[in-house]
Amino acid sequence: MEKVEVPALSDGEVLVKSTYLSVDPYMRNLMRRSKSYMDSYQIGEIFGGAGIGKVVESRSSGYQTGEMVWGILGWQEYSIHRTGQLLKIDPDIQPATAYLGLLGTPGLIAYFGLADVCKPREGKTLVVSSGAGAVGSAVGQIAKHIYGCHVVGITGSDEKAHYLTAELGFDAAINYRLDQNLRIELMKTCPNGIDMYFDNAGGDISDAVFGHINDHARVAVCGQIALYNLARPEAGSRILPSILLHRAMVKGILIADYEDQLAEARQVLGQWLKEGQLKCTETITDGLENITGAFINLFSGTNLGKQLVRI
Amino acid sequence: MEKVEVPALSDGEVLVKSTYLSVDPYMRNLMRRSKSYMDSYQIGEIFGGAGIGKVVESRSSGYQTGEMVWGILGWQEYSIHRTGQLLKIDPDIQPATAYLGLLGTPGLIAYFGLADVCKPREGKTLVVSSGAGAVGSAVGQIAKHIYGCHVVGITGSDEKAHYLTAELGFDAAINYRLDQNLRIELMKTCPNGIDMYFDNAGGDISDAVFGHINDHARVAVCGQIALYNLARPEAGSRILPSILLHRAMVKGILIADYEDQLAEARQVLGQWLKEGQLKCTETITDGLENITGAFINLFSGTNLGKQLVRI
Repeated sequence: MEKVEVPALSDGEVLVKSTYLSVDPYMRNLMRRSKSYMDSYQIGEIFGGAGIGKVVESRSSGYQTGEMVWGILGWQEYSIHRTGQLLKIDPDIQPATAYLGLLGTPGLIAYFGLADVCKPREGKTLVVSSGAGAVGSAVGQIAKHIYGCHVVGITGSDEKAHYLTAELGFDAAINYRLDQNLRIELMKTCPNGIDMYFDNAGGDISDAVFGHINDHARVAVCGQIALYNLARPEAGSRILPSILLHRAMVKGILIADYEDQLAEARQVLGQWLKEGQLKCTETITDGLENITGAFINLFSGTNLGKQLVRI
Repeated sequence: MEKVEVPALSDGEVLVKSTYLSVDPYMRNLMRRSKSYMDSYQIGEIFGGAGIGKVVESRSSGYQTGEMVWGILGWQEYSIHRTGQLLKIDPDIQPATAYLGLLGTPGLIAYFGLADVCKPREGKTLVVSSGAGAVGSAVGQIAKHIYGCHVVGITGSDEKAHYLTAELGFDAAINYRLDQNLRIELMKTCPNGIDMYFDNAGGDISDAVFGHINDHARVAVCGQIALYNLARPEAGSRILPSILLHRAMVKGILIADYEDQLAEARQVLGQWLKEGQLKCTETITDGLENITGAFINLFSGTNLGKQLVRI
């Protein structure tokens, strides 16, 4: 952690004081030298991604001191931006932190992965891995409350499993750490088989799900958090035979591929949120000095919903 | 092998004498008790699938003695059919055995897998595994000569590799048994990466291909012949991380899903064949008594193109 002076603003620039910063699993992949879907972090660069904050000084006519904004703030207290890089937060949206969860990348990729890949239909069964994470909790709620699917979440603790069914309305939740035989739990909770799978986890969890998919199943691959900390790739079940047998469709998704539809999707999600059809689920850690710990917690799964750091 | 009397025909029935019978990799999967995409073979039933033959007796007004037909003849010399189960062979199509290859299930699934899943575009790179098999040789030729793709076949001998480039016009062919480092061979032969993969093989071959796919690659999973004779499922590379990284789309295909488009596709393929854009590639074994050997040869890969048995 480093302390530096905030430089003076140039014309058109805005100084933002961070209020909440986001920690996300994808950041782990950008710590490697190997090719990923975004440029890797470089030593000496500001680390991190999205955050929300307050305009504390403005040399742009479009922004007033005191306004709340979303932007790629990085893991820092203050940041300077050109106005094109910031998104104003709708004051009607409560809480504003939704811009990092349901209305941010997690909610947006849930929205596109469902609409574009899973194509949910009423009464069909959807399984979501890392079901209590920022993406998973959005996926399950949208599939259940908007599309009317039978929704089963896979998660890593009884507490989170209880939250998914009791608070978010999932039809069932499986604690994969407790229920050693995930295949049997999937058969119990998905009596009509699995029509859609939204994968945030990968690894053995996905192997089990692929063993129980229905014909013409549709699978969105959004994350593989179970694998991000492996020193080297591990072997696993082969899934192509199951894809063939069931003529399943599997597609990887990345928010960057939906760039031109983000504003529209954010509006739809914001409407669902205002109507109370979706709930924000957040875990908040206090203090910039605790941000690395909050980040590491993502991989042990101690967070419930969107993990945020309050500055 | 059993000899029985041919029963007398009822009204509307046709007696067909087999001239060529088909042996196909999918039959291996139907020898298991486990669920597959078709009903398993039962002990005591006639084994086998498609064949072509000659009408030798007809009690149907629609069929004349001497006409050539395609049907699910089974591995037998004579078979009785109701006329709705037979397809008349167009005498302009030469050779008539094309109805078991390019105009049969192998050519049709090649056609649909390309059109529906791979969606080939001129200049893009397509890799096909089991490239010298009945499906693979159709895939490569259509991708090359109809769509104008850069086509690389993966096959199991130098002779077959030579055939693919010299006779069928593939841009390159890799003998995976010789070229131990398939990944390096793929990099050499696909300098712009792999945009499409038509998988008939699975196993380590597919693992290598998934390591070299481009963003938004499209993968048709048609067969997994490398795995059909395994006593138990083997572990392999995990492919979901690659699917995610490259936002690839992977889809299993089965001819039964295209039932209502078969006639139209057969017409298009027949036209390409008549125009000389596609070539029939066949390996012919003589005698019903040798049909099991011909079938087993599919798994050692001694056949070039469509393996047929002449009766």
